[in-house]
Amino acid sequence: MAQIVECVPNFSEGRKKEVVEDIASAVREVDGVRILDVEMDASHNRAVLTFIGEPAVVQEAAFRSVAKAVELIDLNLHEGEHPRIGAADVIPFIPISNISMEECVRLAHELGERIWKELEVPVYFYAEAALKPERRLLPKIRKGEFEALKKEMGVRPERAPEVGEPRIHPTAGATVVGARGPLIAYNVNLRTDDLDLAKRIAKGIRASSGGFPEIQAKGFRLEDRGLVQVSMNLLNFRVTAIPRVFEAIREEAEAAGIPIESSEVVGLIPLDALLDCAEHYLQLQEFSRGQILERRLWE
Amino acid sequence: MAQIVECVPNFSEGRKKEVVEDIASAVREVDGVRILDVEMDASHNRAVLTFIGEPAVVQEAAFRSVAKAVELIDLNLHEGEHPRIGAADVIPFIPISNISMEECVRLAHELGERIWKELEVPVYFYAEAALKPERRLLPKIRKGEFEALKKEMGVRPERAPEVGEPRIHPTAGATVVGARGPLIAYNVNLRTDDLDLAKRIAKGIRASSGGFPEIQAKGFRLEDRGLVQVSMNLLNFRVTAIPRVFEAIREEAEAAGIPIESSEVVGLIPLDALLDCAEHYLQLQEFSRGQILERRLWE
Repeated sequence: MAQIVECVPNFSEGRKKEVVEDIASAVREVDGVRILDVEMDASHNRAVLTFIGEPAVVQEAAFRSVAKAVELIDLNLHEGEHPRIGAADVIPFIPISNISMEECVRLAHELGERIWKELEVPVYFYAEAALKPERRLLPKIRKGEFEALKKEMGVRPERAPEVGEPRIHPTAGATVVGARGPLIAYNVNLRTDDLDLAKRIAKGIRASSGGFPEIQAKGFRLEDRGLVQVSMNLLNFRVTAIPRVFEAIREEAEAAGIPIESSEVVGLIPLDALLDCAEHYLQLQEFSRGQILERRLWE
Repeated sequence: MAQIVECVPNFSEGRKKEVVEDIASAVREVDGVRILDVEMDASHNRAVLTFIGEPAVVQEAAFRSVAKAVELIDLNLHEGEHPRIGAADVIPFIPISNISMEECVRLAHELGERIWKELEVPVYFYAEAALKPERRLLPKIRKGEFEALKKEMGVRPERAPEVGEPRIHPTAGATVVGARGPLIAYNVNLRTDDLDLAKRIAKGIRASSGGFPEIQAKGFRLEDRGLVQVSMNLLNFRVTAIPRVFEAIREEAEAAGIPIESSEVVGLIPLDALLDCAEHYLQLQEFSRGQILERRLWE
């Protein structure tokens, strides 16, 4: 089966439609790449593209989108609510199907080299592609944004990029390239109006309170439906799978005498995350994705 | 998303490789059709092709395969263990994705008309495409095989075909066209060597003993693993889904103090059958197949 990788680059332009359209066109002209989504936010003054395909073409499309952004966006003229250091601000690669995180890290590192070599934009690596632990998260890298980085990159060693000389691009700033797991927005609804229960369960499962790794969770009230919800982001379903959080929530809710009413996926979800559920609950043994009848049409 | 239909035609030639290869080539030359499997059985003297694609191209490929078989196979020279009445013996269409059984019945009926019109082979309709209840099953239609049908078709009204004059093709006989659900071979293994338990559970769930519709089931011993198995054919997973039989088996096994060891899918399975499992166990609400991230690459 084909390898599928996703790329979700963020650009510092959320107001001029023609600029974002030009960037999207640069992606579209690469054969085999499919754009899933183009989002523009005027107050953030930021656009987010989502596209998928095989690794080589997605990497090529990512480069072309960065090149186009470097050509069209001048950060000196940019203002918006969202922190940013570059015209092409953040470029994550995400493994979707038949591809490892290691391969996505390699795609990120290669892209970073090319961005410096051909566009003279210095590059930082973040998330799974980070080469320094303090650069796994974006806020550290983006501290003070373009305006501070312009002054500090050349003089403060801790702000030196991973690729390229410590010389910020005069209009396009710097770019952060990385690899991360696919984010799944997943909610479990409980047949009660006891908000404390939802909050307690959320606290018990989220990584920040010592729960499951790669899980963010909050408790909410669904006023109109008279229910409460454990609302989650699964940051990497290969580390913590859906059945694990679903069963943990069910157990704690049932211990309080409350049944699960339903669950819901918000937005997109990789096929593998759903197949994992089927395999888990059916205790499937020796099942291969190659047994899926439609697979030949995807190759 | 694309509509996907499967076609699994059976031909009366299982010994001459070049004949079967010619029939497969006729299928392959239709753009957009993918052959999943070509099986030949010498003692049955029969070949089975499996291919998938969008409805129009699969129907076209089915016609071409029949035309090629009519051209190359002479039933007067055919002998083998498997009952048959035609060079192209049985042609079922199977709904896989985004297509109803009704549409597959229509594909079958149209193909039948064309086979008579262009090839002068009379056609019977079976399974979901049957126009007469006594022709839902094949044995009635194939009674006495080619040799008896040759004598009886023109003189016994109950043997008249649905399409065409009651005049058997001198070398290619007659063809049975139909529509049926996708067959899933699915087994559940129990952590015990109590064969009686597996047999009792199988009897409880199979349609023929008053269990779930569209389920065939038998109990087996897995000698080498010291387990017993409930071995099933799911003839239509949209009528009886995998979780329904899995949970029924689990309940009855647990009542006897026996846990499920694992389950296994033998051969191919439609994606929808697995997604149904994820939806069932997660109590997924308002989930649409369009939320699957990879879907754009399949369109």
